[in-house]
Amino acid sequence: MHNNITEILTEKVTLLRERRPLIHHLTNFVVMNDCANMVLAAGASPVMAHAPEEVAELASVAGALVLNIGTLTSEWVEAMVIAGRAANAAGVPVVLDPVGAGATRLRTESSLRILQEVRVSVVRANASEAAVLAGREARVKGVDAVSGDGLEASLALARRYSLVAAVTGEVDYVSDGRRTYAVANGDPWMGRLTGTGCMASSIVACFCAVEEDKLAAAASALAFYGVAGEIAAGRESLDGIAPAPPRGPMAFKDSLFDAVYNLTGDLAARLARVEAV
Amino acid sequence: MHNNITEILTEKVTLLRERRPLIHHLTNFVVMNDCANMVLAAGASPVMAHAPEEVAELASVAGALVLNIGTLTSEWVEAMVIAGRAANAAGVPVVLDPVGAGATRLRTESSLRILQEVRVSVVRANASEAAVLAGREARVKGVDAVSGDGLEASLALARRYSLVAAVTGEVDYVSDGRRTYAVANGDPWMGRLTGTGCMASSIVACFCAVEEDKLAAAASALAFYGVAGEIAAGRESLDGIAPAPPRGPMAFKDSLFDAVYNLTGDLAARLARVEAV
Amino acid sequence: MHNNITEILTEKVTLLRERRPLIHHLTNFVVMNDCANMVLAAGASPVMAHAPEEVAELASVAGALVLNIGTLTSEWVEAMVIAGRAANAAGVPVVLDPVGAGATRLRTESSLRILQEVRVSVVRANASEAAVLAGREARVKGVDAVSGDGLEASLALARRYSLVAAVTGEVDYVSDGRRTYAVANGDPWMGRLTGTGCMASSIVACFCAVEEDKLAAAASALAFYGVAGEIAAGRESLDGIAPAPPRGPMAFKDSLFDAVYNLTGDLAARLARVEAV
Repeated sequence: MHNNITEILTEKVTLLRERRPLIHHLTNFVVMNDCANMVLAAGASPVMAHAPEEVAELASVAGALVLNIGTLTSEWVEAMVIAGRAANAAGVPVVLDPVGAGATRLRTESSLRILQEVRVSVVRANASEAAVLAGREARVKGVDAVSGDGLEASLALARRYSLVAAVTGEVDYVSDGRRTYAVANGDPWMGRLTGTGCMASSIVACFCAVEEDKLAAAASALAFYGVAGEIAAGRESLDGIAPAPPRGPMAFKDSLFDAVYNLTGDLAARLARVEAV
Repeated sequence: MHNNITEILTEKVTLLRERRPLIHHLTNFVVMNDCANMVLAAGASPVMAHAPEEVAELASVAGALVLNIGTLTSEWVEAMVIAGRAANAAGVPVVLDPVGAGATRLRTESSLRILQEVRVSVVRANASEAAVLAGREARVKGVDAVSGDGLEASLALARRYSLVAAVTGEVDYVSDGRRTYAVANGDPWMGRLTGTGCMASSIVACFCAVEEDKLAAAASALAFYGVAGEIAAGRESLDGIAPAPPRGPMAFKDSLFDAVYNLTGDLAARLARVEAV
Repeated sequence: MHNNITEILTEKVTLLRERRPLIHHLTNFVVMNDCANMVLAAGASPVMAHAPEEVAELASVAGALVLNIGTLTSEWVEAMVIAGRAANAAGVPVVLDPVGAGATRLRTESSLRILQEVRVSVVRANASEAAVLAGREARVKGVDAVSGDGLEASLALARRYSLVAAVTGEVDYVSDGRRTYAVANGDPWMGRLTGTGCMASSIVACFCAVEEDKLAAAASALAFYGVAGEIAAGRESLDGIAPAPPRGPMAFKDSLFDAVYNLTGDLAARLARVEAV
């Protein structure tokens, strides 16, 4: 385990729960409720708002801003750019989730436009989406990743836009183009629910709100969330609660939120599997 | 316990479940599913609709109308005014939930516009939102209340707009500007979920659909909902089900809906803690 | 049990889980998350997208398209027509859920417009909605069916538009105007949750993506979903899991998704109650 990650997990999870930073989301309709509850479970304070008249006000006082393009329209993309610029002006970190980039021209172009007009701190994507935004060929089917080399995609995307690329998959790769972490936490159950990628982006935003080093923040966030997934899948135990495999995806979903709520930074640090690659 | 509240709980919960009034919502994207299921659990029939072409038709045949400004846009506020006026013309009670009033200019101004153009029966708000709408100074962070005196805010808001102000917090204060009830039910677990305030507004609307006295209806609704929260938190028991503390916020959430579904008016009346202040 | 249905259940459920077809939804805000998770539980891959710029791209590569008019606006109806025509051009089956047809003029007219401009494979509706679209008188209250003869409505609707009408209720009737199936699966608990009709439409779309005979596909889908409802209600058992009645609607909801996830085609075929009428 990388020392930096251990330190962030043991110290910043507590800090997050003390400070309760506002995490402003412009996110898709499918996951608004889940992302709000996930942010609350992690210990921060969510707000969902997309009206062009108010996004700058909220983004500029937030601890972090999430721009998630699922169920996008062109009006929402306009509001995302307004919010992103306000966040930039106020020094608020911006996390972009380019849901379905590559699946439609609108999604690819909207992602690229945001990357050009907003200074994004972290892109959280699957391997297909990251490859497309890095200018690579990729197989895409709807909003789920089909294939792709996450390590290569994370490096290429990070270098192209000078940001942190957090590419999730069986192993997550988090790169700033020079340093790269591999995060081996998580569980296949997470792929049987809608929105687990979007919730990962929200957790990344929570960690970015309390940690300056965005590379380490993103890697720590994915380790934290992945450990919660392992607990919910019945592979690891919270102190005093016997693990059991979930009956199905909804039982897993409930347990995932409850694991995030109960997971301490110390336990996350003990179970995190993060290596520099 | 105030006699009036006992009477409403023991009689009107049954009536609600017999009549199943239509509760028309223009509410935010985060909580649409939760509010629909909460209204069903309470025994009424939810409908969510916001198109300007149809809101008047639905609002005028509803048992109550909920206007909730979370995730608002200016188009939605227009539709809320149309729906509210149709409800007014048909004698249908209107419940306003001014989510995030004070957090942005758009939210404050939209709430004030609705209060000017629609005759609102009950405003259900947190202390910060109520104080802002009553013209007071208030600390606001996003959509969660930070501080504020609920009793003072409920009195001021009720008097300013001649309506019932139901201000929820550790103790809820429900006032029509002359009479005021304090409702001491509920549990801190309710603050660990998104939308519990919005769901409170939906429950208030259910009670307003079957009870003429809106002050007593709102106080009874908050007592009913708060008792369900205590049951879900494992502090009180439904007959035959042993209480246990929830493992986390999602376990609590599931139990909250199931407690509302199973809660009788008689048990709610026995556990309600409502006092005239 | 009709042989055709047994064959589809035993063979096509497996095929669905192998192929994981993309099920493109333009659906209402209340149920987006539930329908996405239900499609995943059934074994297919959901995508929710409504921007006019991208719906044709997605619909034309989907396994099936769901058009659900709950929480509609006129802009969404435009996008539905674009998506429906693209699906038609690509030979992708279209399932229409006319939520609340008859409750407002906008909903009735929007449903009729879609039926005129898009070649719909299956309409999944309640008896009131089906009767209204078939040109009959019907009692309507909001988005829940009040009354109506499902058999008659399914026949009339199927004949009027030359499509499969799947009318759900205590007994579901699925007709192409000549052949009609009665599906006697399901449980009253399904009526205590929002979106169970919408989820039925999503499951119908999943089956339409892997079965050419849309009449049999729709009947099999409703039997499959109804069996899952019986399991969730504690009336039937998945192998090795003892059935128990749900504590309330949210416990039932969780179990419904988990039952769909765990339900094999073989068990569904054994428990299905489908008769030609």
